[in-house]
Amino acid sequence: MKVADIGEFGLIAHIAEMVKKNSSRASTAWKHLCLGIGDDAAAWSTGKSINLATTDIMIEGVHFDLKYTGWYDLGWKSIASNISDIAAMGGVPLYALVSLALPGDIEVKDITDLYRGMIGAAECWQAVIGGGNISFSQHVIISVTLLGRAAGSKLLTRSSARKGDCVAITGYPGLSAAGYEILRHKSRMRPNVKKIMLDTHLRPQPRVEEGKILLRNGVRSAIDTSDGLVADLMHLCEASRVSAAIYESSIPVHPFLAEYFPEKCLEMALTGGEDYELLFTATKTVIDRVRNRLACPFSVIGEITSGTPGEVKIYDRQGKSINLETTGWDHYRSRS
Amino acid sequence: MKVADIGEFGLIAHIAEMVKKNSSRASTAWKHLCLGIGDDAAAWSTGKSINLATTDIMIEGVHFDLKYTGWYDLGWKSIASNISDIAAMGGVPLYALVSLALPGDIEVKDITDLYRGMIGAAECWQAVIGGGNISFSQHVIISVTLLGRAAGSKLLTRSSARKGDCVAITGYPGLSAAGYEILRHKSRMRPNVKKIMLDTHLRPQPRVEEGKILLRNGVRSAIDTSDGLVADLMHLCEASRVSAAIYESSIPVHPFLAEYFPEKCLEMALTGGEDYELLFTATKTVIDRVRNRLACPFSVIGEITSGTPGEVKIYDRQGKSINLETTGWDHYRSRS
Repeated sequence: MKVADIGEFGLIAHIAEMVKKNSSRASTAWKHLCLGIGDDAAAWSTGKSINLATTDIMIEGVHFDLKYTGWYDLGWKSIASNISDIAAMGGVPLYALVSLALPGDIEVKDITDLYRGMIGAAECWQAVIGGGNISFSQHVIISVTLLGRAAGSKLLTRSSARKGDCVAITGYPGLSAAGYEILRHKSRMRPNVKKIMLDTHLRPQPRVEEGKILLRNGVRSAIDTSDGLVADLMHLCEASRVSAAIYESSIPVHPFLAEYFPEKCLEMALTGGEDYELLFTATKTVIDRVRNRLACPFSVIGEITSGTPGEVKIYDRQGKSINLETTGWDHYRSRS
Repeated sequence: MKVADIGEFGLIAHIAEMVKKNSSRASTAWKHLCLGIGDDAAAWSTGKSINLATTDIMIEGVHFDLKYTGWYDLGWKSIASNISDIAAMGGVPLYALVSLALPGDIEVKDITDLYRGMIGAAECWQAVIGGGNISFSQHVIISVTLLGRAAGSKLLTRSSARKGDCVAITGYPGLSAAGYEILRHKSRMRPNVKKIMLDTHLRPQPRVEEGKILLRNGVRSAIDTSDGLVADLMHLCEASRVSAAIYESSIPVHPFLAEYFPEKCLEMALTGGEDYELLFTATKTVIDRVRNRLACPFSVIGEITSGTPGEVKIYDRQGKSINLETTGWDHYRSRS
């Protein structure tokens, strides 16, 4: 059996199982591990505080194309996308470690721009580039690890959604997918519209403050939308062993998205990845409390149900179930 | 100017300078950072304890070739080489995060073997695979971040060498380079000799216990030998703003290395990388104390002097200075 046959998430499940079965539970490391494989970040306790760590890789030709992305933006996104995983735990980012692999003929000034973008994003959320390494490769590879801490003694996790919870999302999913379209097809549109879409795609703003506010007000379950709204909701449901129902009429489609992509704005909002919004679930009471405290817009889009674990049903305005061709990004399934 | 023109270490110095100049010193993250770019691992304090984090990447065709390396060994080495950076700080490894990028046509059983190797090495030093991610790529890329903690309130650092210190190294450098030669040229040799060399290359044993013992007994300055004895001593001298003199007659050349590679055993010991031994410096008094406490063999090979920062002079048996063609591994210089 090939990796492509079981897909990205099948492989992760297989690895998680192996690690669980083969690691000795007697070690201090195992005992202090609060969250291992399967959430947005790993979490372990040191004395009274909880440390967080997450890692992600960006490969030229797979995750980005230097024809469409400048070095500054690439640096920004590599750090911001990892900070978003810390935000999804309700945590605070602290340090970034950067493993950079490069061909020798790249200009030093481009790498200077790359690091300007990295430092720019890190500074925005009070993080510091703390280390890393440099290596040769044929294509540009940027592997970032983000280290952080919990804001208190609790965390937002993927596995805390409960039947009856409302499902909610911050901001307007799909704008990043629109930015990606514009980069490739150079649509003619009003400059301010173009800017919003490109900025969402190239300079994502992780919801760090929002994550802390959610956690402080009683939310326990969240994930950031990197693969796409539906795909990430499936991950959250899978981890919580629940299912979800969401409603087309409640999906926050940004007016600009509806104006410029009328045919596929819903699909973009449901399946376009890399928005780095927070998708969360909580009881109605908690949602009402959050409503007055969260500065950014957010929308209740459905509820957690007790169906097949990991299943997400989408209902159109007539109450009919919609079948999507794809639910979001899988590194192997999305290619086949 | 191209990346290849300034080399791996020139680029690291440039990045370190940028980060230092452009990061706001007011952040909590900056204040709690004990060691940033330039040591074996980043170190930051959380309450009373010091956390450590290091990261490294292995790319197919650059760092390994699947013709010569099995999946289990690849997994082992990816974890062990990172644990070695924690050992070089006198620290304790805790968690590994693994970013894996793979072509879709790789067999799942090969990835199972890869993780068996990772878990095997992690277990050996009481660490746990705590998370990571999977991504598509044309070639296999393994990026590992190792999280650890200081054993107490102190650390071994690259920047603590002082003029007059003895320079010492654990074990027998050059055996990994010999293993690499054997893999490529299949030399005929006694099986037990072959095994020692191959094991050093394919299944390195990071000196975690030794690092802790060194630290506990007063050693303050160390680095692990991943680039090669001379290259790593240069890194240590550079960080400490000192120079060093080492003596051919004191270099511990393993008898098997001398027997099978008589022409180039000295060069292999001085410049062959990936031995993951600990190179350390300390006063004569501390070295004498360590002598009775360290279970593994170690050799005093020279001393720290006050010459040009970063310079390492090598003297032959006649007291004449030796010039090496290369001092060890630089990801760009070693290719040009």
